[in-house]
This record gives sequence, structure tokens and C-alpha cells, in this order.
Amino acid sequence: MILELDRQSHMPLYEQIAAQVRQLIRRGAIKVGDRLPPNRALAERLGVNRSTVVTAYDELLADGLIASRVGSGTYVVAAPASPPGDNAVAADSSAALTPLHWETALPELRHEEWLANSEAARRKDCVLFTHALPATELFPLDEFRRSVERVLRREGRSLLQLGASSGYEPLQQYLLQQMALAGVRAEAGEILLTSGCQQALDLLRQTLLQPGDEVVIENPTYPGALSLFCQPQYKFIGVPVGTRGLDLDALEDALRRRRPKLIYVVPTFHNPTGVTMDLASRRRLIELAAQYRVPIVEDEIYRDLRYGGASLPSLKALDRYGVVIYLNSFSKVGFPGLRVGWVVAPRLLIEHLHALRQRSDLHGNLLAQAAMADFARHGLLQKHLQRCSRHYAQRRDAMFAALRQYFQIGASWTEPEGGMAVWLRLPERVNSIELLTQAQQQGVYFTPGPRFYAGGAQANTLRLSFTTATPAQIETGVKTLGKLVEKLMAANAPARASQSAAPRKALV
Amino acid sequence: MILELDRQSHMPLYEQIAAQVRQLIRRGAIKVGDRLPPNRALAERLGVNRSTVVTAYDELLADGLIASRVGSGTYVVAAPASPPGDNAVAADSSAALTPLHWETALPELRHEEWLANSEAARRKDCVLFTHALPATELFPLDEFRRSVERVLRREGRSLLQLGASSGYEPLQQYLLQQMALAGVRAEAGEILLTSGCQQALDLLRQTLLQPGDEVVIENPTYPGALSLFCQPQYKFIGVPVGTRGLDLDALEDALRRRRPKLIYVVPTFHNPTGVTMDLASRRRLIELAAQYRVPIVEDEIYRDLRYGGASLPSLKALDRYGVVIYLNSFSKVGFPGLRVGWVVAPRLLIEHLHALRQRSDLHGNLLAQAAMADFARHGLLQKHLQRCSRHYAQRRDAMFAALRQYFQIGASWTEPEGGMAVWLRLPERVNSIELLTQAQQQGVYFTPGPRFYAGGAQANTLRLSFTTATPAQIETGVKTLGKLVEKLMAANAPARASQSAAPRKALV
Repeated sequence: MILELDRQSHMPLYEQIAAQVRQLIRRGAIKVGDRLPPNRALAERLGVNRSTVVTAYDELLADGLIASRVGSGTYVVAAPASPPGDNAVAADSSAALTPLHWETALPELRHEEWLANSEAARRKDCVLFTHALPATELFPLDEFRRSVERVLRREGRSLLQLGASSGYEPLQQYLLQQMALAGVRAEAGEILLTSGCQQALDLLRQTLLQPGDEVVIENPTYPGALSLFCQPQYKFIGVPVGTRGLDLDALEDALRRRRPKLIYVVPTFHNPTGVTMDLASRRRLIELAAQYRVPIVEDEIYRDLRYGGASLPSLKALDRYGVVIYLNSFSKVGFPGLRVGWVVAPRLLIEHLHALRQRSDLHGNLLAQAAMADFARHGLLQKHLQRCSRHYAQRRDAMFAALRQYFQIGASWTEPEGGMAVWLRLPERVNSIELLTQAQQQGVYFTPGPRFYAGGAQANTLRLSFTTATPAQIETGVKTLGKLVEKLMAANAPARASQSAAPRKALV
Repeated sequence: MILELDRQSHMPLYEQIAAQVRQLIRRGAIKVGDRLPPNRALAERLGVNRSTVVTAYDELLADGLIASRVGSGTYVVAAPASPPGDNAVAADSSAALTPLHWETALPELRHEEWLANSEAARRKDCVLFTHALPATELFPLDEFRRSVERVLRREGRSLLQLGASSGYEPLQQYLLQQMALAGVRAEAGEILLTSGCQQALDLLRQTLLQPGDEVVIENPTYPGALSLFCQPQYKFIGVPVGTRGLDLDALEDALRRRRPKLIYVVPTFHNPTGVTMDLASRRRLIELAAQYRVPIVEDEIYRDLRYGGASLPSLKALDRYGVVIYLNSFSKVGFPGLRVGWVVAPRLLIEHLHALRQRSDLHGNLLAQAAMADFARHGLLQKHLQRCSRHYAQRRDAMFAALRQYFQIGASWTEPEGGMAVWLRLPERVNSIELLTQAQQQGVYFTPGPRFYAGGAQANTLRLSFTTATPAQIETGVKTLGKLVEKLMAANAPARASQSAAPRKALV
């Protein structure tokens, strides 16, 4: 890609870049599907600031000419002012120039950044507060390998053969027993094994939602739920999260006026805030759902990671009306790479999810399901969970201590009794994305708050996961962040004492 | 459920049953979600033929009051003449009686029978010609277990942790190398690992199709494709399959008149017919697709199961236009229970499939992907494939021999050079579903032809898979079928020499 910039021109450099790229695409010198140079490389080649190239690419992005994907690059996805023409019927020799419809008709590729940073995860010198994931170094590899070996020896032939779409039956039985101990009564036929909670959410989306339907989500919430429920064909109703979880007055108001088809909620150690709904709120949520006949999708993925305080019954255990659909998985307490989760719901709904799952991918990985069943039946999951909980509690405490020491700057944060992360609110003039940009240069990573919002993102929030860093790393990382926040506050300080904006409703 | 039949009534017994069940549902004595007695049990209790109950249930099914699922039972899904009422807004105390929308608003559960018969598979005394699946007894369990152990020892921590949505990278590299040897040139970024071909098909469906879009499928074809592409929101164009595969004249005619968004085709050892497209047909298919700008989805799942003749290049290897999307998996040559498949397509499309896959289930099972990569890299997959091919060739030959011996009755069948099954055409007056009903009583199972048709099913066709039965079982089973066909022909023989219908276009 040859670009020539005129530094004497009145046209800003970024506009020159955008205009020339546009021209190259129009002339066919760059084609749909071609990759543009990384902005850093192009900036170096042209001798301009990287932000100049970023701005130019943003223009082209806004034009719909290019799309980019974190970790992969920026691609030309459309040509300017070249009408796509009659796509299917024209059969003359020039038709081969007509683009295939994925070349032009697909929507702009959405940035899916919430699984990124895997490269950083491999670097030893980084402090990763990014992911709500189990600590890899605590995986009991030998014990798990023996479980895999046992099930392969015992029933390898059936595990490697095509199986039932509902999944490995002994694991279903185990899960039903475990849930019964926690007060969730369900029978065979009311459970479906899924590839993690994400697949359960996607199956529920496809089963319960039609285009145009409304969905209640907590705001902020799990990005994987945002990626499903905040697609353009649905309308989301974002309900704020307070110190007692989902704001039930706001929810009731929404239910009175609108007709959502489901309510997605993480009542225990909510992601990202760490907040847990108290018992009275749980009861009221169920009454509201029953009254307005809206199913609750309860995601209990962090439930068993409790380091203090008393366990509360899940919504499903409290549900006398049959309105709660329960999701869980082994991805937080066990091994996310295995993709084993489950959904518990009334039989009729499970049948529909089951039929849909069969169309989607036939069934899940039976070896992983059987190995998890064996691992759990031998008490190894419980042992692993206890060991992880001890470590995570220490790490959480190290994070609390470091925050108290290094964040004496008007920040506030949650101090959850379990889960994997702390939710931080910085002074309003600090932008967490700006903070991340600077922190990454010092090897500290976290997830900026805006990534968890469906709308109305609060730019001064962030999530710090405490499970994947050691206490020493946590101290170092939080210290680095604290200093950077002070620097940003100084840099962004108003010239005169400004009137502080009316305080927003405290999220936590 | 208490029913009383009046055997003196002019009302047929099945109508009496249907009417009384309708009444019980209306009165609330049977509720939505309740399970009806199995038809065999009800028939016994009432002292009627099972077919009487089946007919009654069919009536209720046609009314939309009940739905059934093989292996699970028949359920009440709606009540007659009870308007669902205002679902979400009414907030008075009677609202709790309003059904949740999955209780009434979901479409009738479709019969998904193509994975059924798993119970029969466990019985030793049965002959199973039902499934196009690898022979379980040939699985090299020890070798595969050592692969699993090796990868867990070497990289267990990263395999059990959350990974990239595109899948285990070394397996992608291996597959790209293997495909390059077969003339398919593709680079990193043009491949995505999926949970079998089924997930690849579903991701393609969601990416390439909008409601109302048209799809070209072979007719008959793989039932998993039917379950996706013959949903009510799409229109399918079923193109017949002849001795050289997809009827290209019919295809061209369809392309000239209509605007399908994709063409799904199994060019090598087509399921269910076993037919392979010759080279000239492959070239012409690609030219047509390029000319009309319709992508081809090429499913090459049976490709490597060849027991004679020369291998032909895949469509993807012949494609100079970038119109072919290539699917394959380890489910036929390896282990279907692991759910490891892949799709190769232009980079931009892969990016979209990748993003969608992340929303669907984050990623596939990394342990299975890594174990397959290790198993293949050590030459064990090739060795396993050779061993299976020897056995499958013997089994296929045993089936050909048995068919020649026991089907001297005007039947015809395909004799494919590979794959897993033979497609059989019986004399027109024999119905393969009727044949199956009788064969099952003698412990012989197969898949009736109509299950593979999108429409215009030919009732006298059936598929006999030869991979999951031994040569001795094959002889026994085919002999049983041959006798039953003769019996059915005698029973269904016309009283006088009827004018035979004009022969349909021979499918094969």
C-alpha cells in the first residue's frame, strides 16, 4: 500500500490517509478481503503518530469499508460507490466480478474483545487482572488425567461413539443429586448438558426470543450475555445493579410497562460487580417474574466459589412457580477448556433445547463429560474447589489490602464474599480505557468497565480479577494501577475547582 | 388417564380416543407438560390395536395439542380452545395461571429421529444397518488413550483453560498440511475448528441465511442438513441426485430462475445414496456456482473412506473462484463422540463464523482437538483408517453379495466405492417404513429412505449402512429383509395385473 502525504496541505493527515485508502479500494488496488497494514506499522512507515492512523481507520470503519478484529487485523469489507448489482440472476461472463454475498452483505464484524489478551496471558512478566478464570497453576493435572484414563478404560468405546444429545447420563444424575442437596429439585428429563453456560444462553436465546423481542439484563453484566442479547434484532432493557443486586424497583417498573421474554440474572457474585442478591430480594424477584409471567434465566456459575458468609438458596431452589431456568458450568470451579455446563428447566423447555442442540452440534464432548463425572464422583472436584477457595481467598484479601494501600484517591470498590473479581469505581475524571492503555505498557492488564455495559457505560469503572495472579503480583499490579490513577487524575485535573457533577446513583 | 370406548358406536375407536383425550385436556384433567401413556401401553390397557392409538395420537398431533419425541414420550403442549390471554401486562393475582410462553408459544416439537435407535445399538442380538457410523469395536482405544495422556502431560494446563475460539492451533496446522497434499490451498485464518460438521453447517446457516432465503440441497440428503435448511423460515430447492451426483441440469434450471444463498452438496460418497460426482460434473458445478455467484458448501466427511477406484479432487481443490466452503470432520474416520470437525473458507467468512462461534459456545473442547492432533501426527489415524477400510470393504462386499443372493425381486441398489452405506430401491409397492416395522420385530434395523428427503420422498427406498455390522450379521440381516420384502410384495400384490406406473426418474 503506497500512500503519499502532503504535510503542507490544509487537509489533516488522517483525512489524507483515509482518502487515499478509499481511492485504492475504489481502483481495485486493494480488494475486499485484503488486510490493511497494522496501524502501528503504517504509522511507522508514514512517519506519523499512531493515533493519526487510528483516526483514519476509524473514518473508513465508519464508512463501512473496513472492519477490524482484535488479534487478527483490519480488512477491507466493501468497496466505495460500487453498486453490488444484481447478485444472482445475471449470468454473463462479467458475473464473476460480482461479489459473493458474504463479501458485501454481512454486517460489520463486531469487535469481540472479551476473550482477547491471550497473548499477554502467556507472558510471565505481566500481571493479569483481566479474566474471571480459574488459576491454571492450581489445576490438579495428575488427578484429572487419571479420571480421563479411568473413563477411557471403562467405557472408551461408547464415549468415542456418537451419543445422546442430552449428554452423558451419569453426569446428569450426579448434577441432579448435587442440586437436590442445594434444594433444587429436578428430575431426569429436566436437565441438558451444554458446552458451557454460553451454549445454554444461546440455545435459550434461539428458543425463547423472536426478532423484536425484549430482554431484561443486568447492566453491567457478563459480556457473553451482551454478545447474545444486545444483537440488533432484540431490544434489551438494562436494569441497574445496586448493593443488593438487580434493582427490583427498576425491574418492576420495566415489567409494568414492557413485555420482556426473559430476565437474565447472575444473583450470586454477579459478574462484574461481585454483588450477591440477599434472600428477600431473591424472593421478590421470583414473585415479580411469576406475576408478570417472565422466565428468569439464573446463571449460578460463581455460586460455589464462596470464601466467607453463608450460602443463599438459588432462585431455582426458591421457585414455587416454575419460572426459573437454572444455568451452571464447571468453567469456574473446574476446567473451562472442557466446555461442560448444564441447564435445568421444565421438561417441555428442555425438550425444545434438546432438539435445538441436536440441530446445532448433535451433542457435547462425551469424554469431557465422563471425565468430569468421574473426577467429581471421586471427591476430587470438591478437594480441588477447597484448595482453589483457599488460594482465591488469599488473593482476594491481598487485593483488598493493596487497594486500601494504593487507592487512597477517592476510588471505591466492592468486597465480595466470593467469586473471582472486584469492581472498582475511580474518580469520575479517570477513564478506565485510558488507564488500561497506560497500564499495559507497564505489564498490567484488567478489563475496563465499559465492556460490561449494554449502554450508559460508566467510563470510570473497571473489573479486577484476583484469581489468576499471585498475592505478590497482585500487590505489584495494584500499586502500578494506583500510581497511574494518581497521574491521570493530576493530568486530567480541572484548571479551576469545577462544580462536581451531581453524583450518579452509586452502582455499588 | 381414564378412557371408555364404546365398541357399538359408529364413531371409529381412534376418534373416540382422540375426542376423550381432547376433553380431558380441556377440562384440565391432563395439563400442558403432562406425558401421555406410550401408545403400546395405552393400546394394551384399552384392548385395541396399537395402530388405533397411533392414529388417535396423530389426530391430536395434527391438532397441535400434543408433541412427541422418540425415546422420551408424548406430551401435551397446548389446550384446545383456551385463549392464552394477555401474557405480560396483566398483573392481578390470576396472572399466575397464565402460561409461560414456552408452554404455549413454542412451535410443535419436530421429530428428530435420525439419532434414535441408540437403545437397539446396545442389544447384541440386533443387526444394525441404521447409522452411518464407524465400527465401535475397531476403535484403537489403547493408542488413543496414550494420545490423550501425552497431550495432558505435555500441555494439560493450557488445554483445560479457556482458549481461542478458532480452536487448537496445532490441529489447524496439521489439517492445513493434509489438505494441501490433497490440493486444497488454505492458510491460517482460513480454517475454523468446529464441533463436527453439524456445527459448521449451523454456523453457516446463521451467517449466510436470512429468513425467507432459499437454499439448494440435494434430495435426498443428510438429515442433519435437512434439520437446519428445511426449517419454515427458509425455502429449500431440492435437486435430485443421479448416478453422477447432483443433477446439474436441474440445478442450472433452478439457478436461472431463483436466487439461492447456498448450495449444500456431498460430492463424494453422497449420503444416503453413496454416489460420487465425476470430475466433469465437479467442474461444471463450480462453473455454475461461480457464474451465478452462489457459494457451494461442500461436505467431504466420507472422502477418505475409499475402498476402490481413484480419489477425485474435492470441489475446493478445483475452485478457482473462491466460491467453495469446505467441511470435514473426524466423525467418520475417527471418533464421532469427540465432536471435532473443521470448515475452510475465505478469511472474511471465517472471521464471521469465528465471531458467531464465540457467541455460540466460546470454543470447542481443546482436549479432544489436541488428542486428535497427537493421534494423527503419530500416524495412528492413518493406521486406524487403513484398518477400518479393510473391514468396511469386506462388510460392503458382504452386503453386495447378500443383496445379490436375497434380493432377486426387482430391487436395485448402489454399489459405492466407499463411504458407509448402500441405497436400496425396492419394488414400488413396498413401503420401507412398513418394512422397518416388521424388520424390527426380527431384530433388523435400517433407515427408511423418506427420512432423507426434503420433499417428494420415495417410499420404496432405504439406506443400509454396512459399517456397524459384521459380515455374518450382514448376511443374516439382509436375508431377513429379503424374505420380508417378498412377503410384503405378496401381501400388497394387486388383485389383477395392474398397469405399472410410469417409471420415476431413476434416482441411481
